[in-house]
Amino acid sequence: MSDAVIQDPIGLDVTEEVAAQLRVDSVRSSASAGSGHPSSSMSAADLLAVLVTRHLRYDWDEPAATGNDHLIFSKGHASPLLYSVYKAVGVIFDEELMTGYRRFGHRLQGHPTPVLPWVDVATGSLGQGLPDGVGVALAAKRLENAPYRVWVLCGDSELTEGSIWEALDKASTYGLTNLITMVDVNRLGQRGATELGWDMDAYAARVEAFGARAIVVDGHDLAAIDEAMTAATATDLDRPVVILARTVKGKGFTTIEDSPEWHGKPLPADLAEQAIAELGGERHLQVRGPQAPNVTGPDLAPSAVQLPTYDQGAKVATRKAYGDGLVALGRADPRVVALDAEVSNSTHADQFAHELPDRFFEMYIAEQQMVAAATGLSVRGYTAFASTFAAFLTRAHDFVRMAPISGADLRLVGSHAGVEIGADGPSQMALEDLAMIAATHGSTVLYPSDATSTVALVQAMADTPGVVYMRTTRGAYPVLYGPDETFPVGGSKMLRSTDDDTVTLVGAGVTLHEALRAADTLADEGINARVIDTYSIKPIDTATLVAAVNATGGRIVVAEDHHREGGLGAATTTALVGAGITGLHLEHLAVDGIPGSGTSTELLAWAGIDADHIATAARRLNQH
Amino acid sequence: MSDAVIQDPIGLDVTEEVAAQLRVDSVRSSASAGSGHPSSSMSAADLLAVLVTRHLRYDWDEPAATGNDHLIFSKGHASPLLYSVYKAVGVIFDEELMTGYRRFGHRLQGHPTPVLPWVDVATGSLGQGLPDGVGVALAAKRLENAPYRVWVLCGDSELTEGSIWEALDKASTYGLTNLITMVDVNRLGQRGATELGWDMDAYAARVEAFGARAIVVDGHDLAAIDEAMTAATATDLDRPVVILARTVKGKGFTTIEDSPEWHGKPLPADLAEQAIAELGGERHLQVRGPQAPNVTGPDLAPSAVQLPTYDQGAKVATRKAYGDGLVALGRADPRVVALDAEVSNSTHADQFAHELPDRFFEMYIAEQQMVAAATGLSVRGYTAFASTFAAFLTRAHDFVRMAPISGADLRLVGSHAGVEIGADGPSQMALEDLAMIAATHGSTVLYPSDATSTVALVQAMADTPGVVYMRTTRGAYPVLYGPDETFPVGGSKMLRSTDDDTVTLVGAGVTLHEALRAADTLADEGINARVIDTYSIKPIDTATLVAAVNATGGRIVVAEDHHREGGLGAATTTALVGAGITGLHLEHLAVDGIPGSGTSTELLAWAGIDADHIATAARRLNQH
Repeated sequence: MSDAVIQDPIGLDVTEEVAAQLRVDSVRSSASAGSGHPSSSMSAADLLAVLVTRHLRYDWDEPAATGNDHLIFSKGHASPLLYSVYKAVGVIFDEELMTGYRRFGHRLQGHPTPVLPWVDVATGSLGQGLPDGVGVALAAKRLENAPYRVWVLCGDSELTEGSIWEALDKASTYGLTNLITMVDVNRLGQRGATELGWDMDAYAARVEAFGARAIVVDGHDLAAIDEAMTAATATDLDRPVVILARTVKGKGFTTIEDSPEWHGKPLPADLAEQAIAELGGERHLQVRGPQAPNVTGPDLAPSAVQLPTYDQGAKVATRKAYGDGLVALGRADPRVVALDAEVSNSTHADQFAHELPDRFFEMYIAEQQMVAAATGLSVRGYTAFASTFAAFLTRAHDFVRMAPISGADLRLVGSHAGVEIGADGPSQMALEDLAMIAATHGSTVLYPSDATSTVALVQAMADTPGVVYMRTTRGAYPVLYGPDETFPVGGSKMLRSTDDDTVTLVGAGVTLHEALRAADTLADEGINARVIDTYSIKPIDTATLVAAVNATGGRIVVAEDHHREGGLGAATTTALVGAGITGLHLEHLAVDGIPGSGTSTELLAWAGIDADHIATAARRLNQH
Repeated sequence: MSDAVIQDPIGLDVTEEVAAQLRVDSVRSSASAGSGHPSSSMSAADLLAVLVTRHLRYDWDEPAATGNDHLIFSKGHASPLLYSVYKAVGVIFDEELMTGYRRFGHRLQGHPTPVLPWVDVATGSLGQGLPDGVGVALAAKRLENAPYRVWVLCGDSELTEGSIWEALDKASTYGLTNLITMVDVNRLGQRGATELGWDMDAYAARVEAFGARAIVVDGHDLAAIDEAMTAATATDLDRPVVILARTVKGKGFTTIEDSPEWHGKPLPADLAEQAIAELGGERHLQVRGPQAPNVTGPDLAPSAVQLPTYDQGAKVATRKAYGDGLVALGRADPRVVALDAEVSNSTHADQFAHELPDRFFEMYIAEQQMVAAATGLSVRGYTAFASTFAAFLTRAHDFVRMAPISGADLRLVGSHAGVEIGADGPSQMALEDLAMIAATHGSTVLYPSDATSTVALVQAMADTPGVVYMRTTRGAYPVLYGPDETFPVGGSKMLRSTDDDTVTLVGAGVTLHEALRAADTLADEGINARVIDTYSIKPIDTATLVAAVNATGGRIVVAEDHHREGGLGAATTTALVGAGITGLHLEHLAVDGIPGSGTSTELLAWAGIDADHIATAARRLNQH
């Protein structure tokens, strides 16, 4: 066992040894953990051996170097293979592979996450790594003008995820010739055979129909793989390349080769021993493949943002203000980019598209790919704002769920919130979006009521890590705040307040305006209502809510244009209970039915969340 | 204007008149509403005219007749066209079209919903109608052996949704030659031109690569459309047919034809007048196309279910019990069918697949299509259970969101809940699924802690309307309940209770078992803890919780293997506050961090939701 590092250029004879080592280590690591997917790792070992020894341009000592290629395991369950690669290049040691894999408190998790510096995005939910890779490739080709390539390893089973085809479609449209997809076609999924088995022609036809060039290879013929990867990285490509590798699950250990019985099963000790013997025994080679070119990233220094201002009282839709704020941000900060899903004239992302077209990416009707691209762009340090109708963001929920695990910063904007949208009806109305985002790890949920707060919060979004969501409204409502007001995340605005308030009214977005009208009506009846604009739903301004509730005898009405669960009412209730408030008299107005079409006014009344209903609830509470 | 109904067989000369009428009425209805998508309707008018006059076999007076074809507008925004069709066949009157479209309280909503008896599923979220149609077609071909066809109208813009390709892939795999997709290729989306424009060859290549036969036609050549539809319904088809119709947006009114400026815009009065004139004026023809064959549905009378029983104390995973219960249900009830997404050996749906293979549908890794198929099957009266890892159900959130609007009954089962799953790590752990389903309109959320309650609740799911969700656990835990116990939805089980309880412990699934262990520990310390198994999270057993909290001085610990928002803690808090409980001392234990790999025990402890932490919280409360 030589300690010498074998350097580039590496011959295929060494590659063959590396491939065997990757197989051996996949068996060893999963066997020692008693958990993992060795057979899924063994089928792709030749692909990775050739890639890492002869094509992946990567400085393993400088994972953040701009010139580095990117490697994403869309088939994240092949983590034994990925970690074995890390050992082969010397960035992790054999001991960690054998004692840390899938163990509590260790970084070699069951599916890769960016706790490891060589991992861009967390995978494990299939059909995500490739769309994420589209985002990274977009950054290289359209923003950084950098020469790095994005290599994505997919399984064949995951090609039934529609998101894969959203990805290839965008790769074609955007000419992402720097994106190389490698499909490990081992014909076996978790439960049994895939639909297409080893019908390589069928896969090739699909891939080519979606605008890529298919290169079909024997996934265990190193020379053929090597040739395919050379072709895939030619400088005169006109289309992205998809390498379709015909492979055998469990390749290298005949006992399990091509067997449907071994998915996700580590080899028991005796079989592991046999496998290692058949593979020629343990190896501890260290290799370093091609170096990454020395590339400086673009200069992305921001300047001061000049937010637009609005005249108090003027009617401006918050979705319009989003458009304004995004442009202002984009003018000042070259890292800001925007994406939309074919509704930018509705979300007002089109303003950015018109003013800064080089930094706008139309994703067409493909919300999963849009959110994944935002994730990939954030990997490259861009501040990506992704917008669509809030209702349609639910299409990308699994991508939103994975973002915190990836440590990604996602700026999501959902327009056309609630029944307020009117005539289009329920399919277009977001009534569960707050719940979706609030339940996402570490998220921030913002719901501004006017244009001034919207542009301030758009700026705040850019500086807030993690998944950050802003909900915007279709209709135009009066500007409430002057340009010098500040809107810290986690704060709120108290719009009405006296020393004799007997009830607190809490709203956000359209219901904040309804609450103000209700307060006016109540004032005429001699009832003083405190009105709080909870523009920050998560984190929520517990202190202000507590003070208000204490000042108003525990009487509080919360109204939201959202279903009853998981939104503003839930957040308010949880905050007050958590703060130890006793004697709470809370009325929660939310959308309980299924709306139809109608005008905003009709629907807000029907839903019981308009000024009349808020006032009625307040009067009811005042009887206590 | 003749009142006479023109009957089948209808000549293309009449079809041409009907097409003009559909265009005129699309203009008139949207103009009168001041809202709607006339141009998107006008491009598809010829397709629908030919379909309805010469191919759609439908008894308009008996919308529920088994022999009826099905018509789904996947491009739901073309509702003016659909409603104009309903007028042309005489099931709605012109007055309703002109005064009810998009109006509050009326059934002709902006996007079609099954408030109308001729509408199967609500559409408007693009890329859903076709996957839904796959479910309906599956029912016909694989269950009912019925001759009806499923016609789906798609826009070209929505073909960028990955779910469309999941649908075509399954249509191919399942040989759904009874599914006819008609794509209205008018080259213009909402915001501008589509990616492929009028490149019909590109669309054809994609469609054919996915296993369908593409028929490209001039979408305004009635004879060609007619021929295509005849070919699409030939009895010797070997593949599903996709009719790709090259069309012009706004066809029929030259002022707006092929203009990107008119998406989603009703014509103002003057232009509407011009359009109607150019189209040859108003018409009020009534037509009836081909009759539906007289078909009797299969005999689906259920017999008594014999649920499996378990020995108390035996360790059985609730996911295993799901498999057992589903089989028991399936044996007794021929309406019960099951779907899974390539993880049936993990969810245990494979038991059903082995025992009742004719009623099991493998959807492969395509959760969106799986949920859509369940929706389509429910349209045909089947009780469809769809399972996958709970974490991956988020992939189908938009389909879950639309289900209540469709009035569909969805039985969703998500396995591998929470950190409990162990070594696989966070990508596979569902930590926000309860929130997602709870926020869905009218949903039911079930989380059984043992095998007995699981099988009882599986049976209850079959009888519960709307979206019903069961969360199952990976690991095996002791059977707690005897076979004679009942588990009503909305109920709970009080497992420990004395007259001297000083704290209430609430858990579900794994945390219920942890709560029991905590109670044992506390009992040794002289602290009596009431333990409640909230197997029904929505609706939750408010009465039992209130009684418990009152009996234990307001002291309650809730522990859940889920994020803090939108799950069991939120439901409990909301229920207690809503019931007017004051003096609540609630400790909510939930998963606040991002988990890694580990054993169940390590991760439950890390998350602070295990017996130790529950006991600690209880002791803390007892100091009050």
